[in-house]
Amino acid sequence: MKHLLPLDDLVAALEKLPGIGKRSAERMALAVVQSRDGLARKLAHALLAADEQVGNCSCCGGITVTKENPCELCSDGQRATGLICVVESPGDILKIDKTHGFKGRYHVLGGHLSPALGKSVADLRVNELLSRLQPEGIQEVIIALGTDVESEATVSYLADVLSSRKVKVSRLAFGLPSGSAIEYADATTLQRAIEGRQLL
Amino acid sequence: MKHLLPLDDLVAALEKLPGIGKRSAERMALAVVQSRDGLARKLAHALLAADEQVGNCSCCGGITVTKENPCELCSDGQRATGLICVVESPGDILKIDKTHGFKGRYHVLGGHLSPALGKSVADLRVNELLSRLQPEGIQEVIIALGTDVESEATVSYLADVLSSRKVKVSRLAFGLPSGSAIEYADATTLQRAIEGRQLL
Repeated sequence: MKHLLPLDDLVAALEKLPGIGKRSAERMALAVVQSRDGLARKLAHALLAADEQVGNCSCCGGITVTKENPCELCSDGQRATGLICVVESPGDILKIDKTHGFKGRYHVLGGHLSPALGKSVADLRVNELLSRLQPEGIQEVIIALGTDVESEATVSYLADVLSSRKVKVSRLAFGLPSGSAIEYADATTLQRAIEGRQLL
Repeated sequence: MKHLLPLDDLVAALEKLPGIGKRSAERMALAVVQSRDGLARKLAHALLAADEQVGNCSCCGGITVTKENPCELCSDGQRATGLICVVESPGDILKIDKTHGFKGRYHVLGGHLSPALGKSVADLRVNELLSRLQPEGIQEVIIALGTDVESEATVSYLADVLSSRKVKVSRLAFGLPSGSAIEYADATTLQRAIEGRQLL
């Protein structure tokens, strides 16, 4: 079959999605063109609508509908709690916000320091963070980055930069993930859970 | 975050793709709207192009570009070998064709008998198959269906219907999958591999 170019193009485009390999993309493309309820058109229109109507908040850098800028979270007066949570990507905001465990503001860094990927300090939204501290009356910056080596380096860098400001700096707790058994925890996680043990 | 409707709509549309759950759909949607090289628009256009330009061959039922009907495989004179391979879906044709191990024609059944899904004989392209036998000088029908219970029932039904026609009817061999060890084969596969053993 040499002449199924539109299908091949679709497979190539689907392969660009995160976590999708060639076989998954082929299966999706076939399902889409065989769909009887117009899946291709529905998905295409949802993509174009999202592309047109969704953008980044000029304040926190998170995702927002373009007509609402600053975003819902940044313009919510009840969130002016003096707390700001620094995350890597807009998706992290959605994730943390779903927990309903944090009521402060957010700030998207736009990645972490990564020499391998050529990401340096200049590529992160650090100055944007610093310029928010005073006007928003921030008293504590919670750094919510991951625990890989590069994220750790980014945390150190941020802690260093923030040390000269009049704010507390904290980061997320290390420990056992919820619902997990000791049996499945790796040595570093266990060690950190012991170090961070809490009195009952 | 209540007002990210376009993103929610996109997640809902992506979730309709085969093998995509809510979390994968969310990850994809975020990647798409955050993409700096216009992934959303590229994917949308690939979807619309495929939807417009790809259809089903009126002869074999496989996938073809709509302006080429009957499809490349059906109109290829070199494939008039008297052999026809019956498959469940258009994707199966692409899969078998990639092996370069079959040079005859194909016929898409459009599924298998499934009382659970309400798929009966009337929903399968059986009459279309029967009407191709004589004009195309078919001497052997190779049934290339799976080995689950419902596919087995479909194979039996087809064998029964075809028994009154002047054609040989065969089905794909059972046995060990390529590259596999005895250790990983289940009892039924092993039993069938023994039954179908070949003299060396």
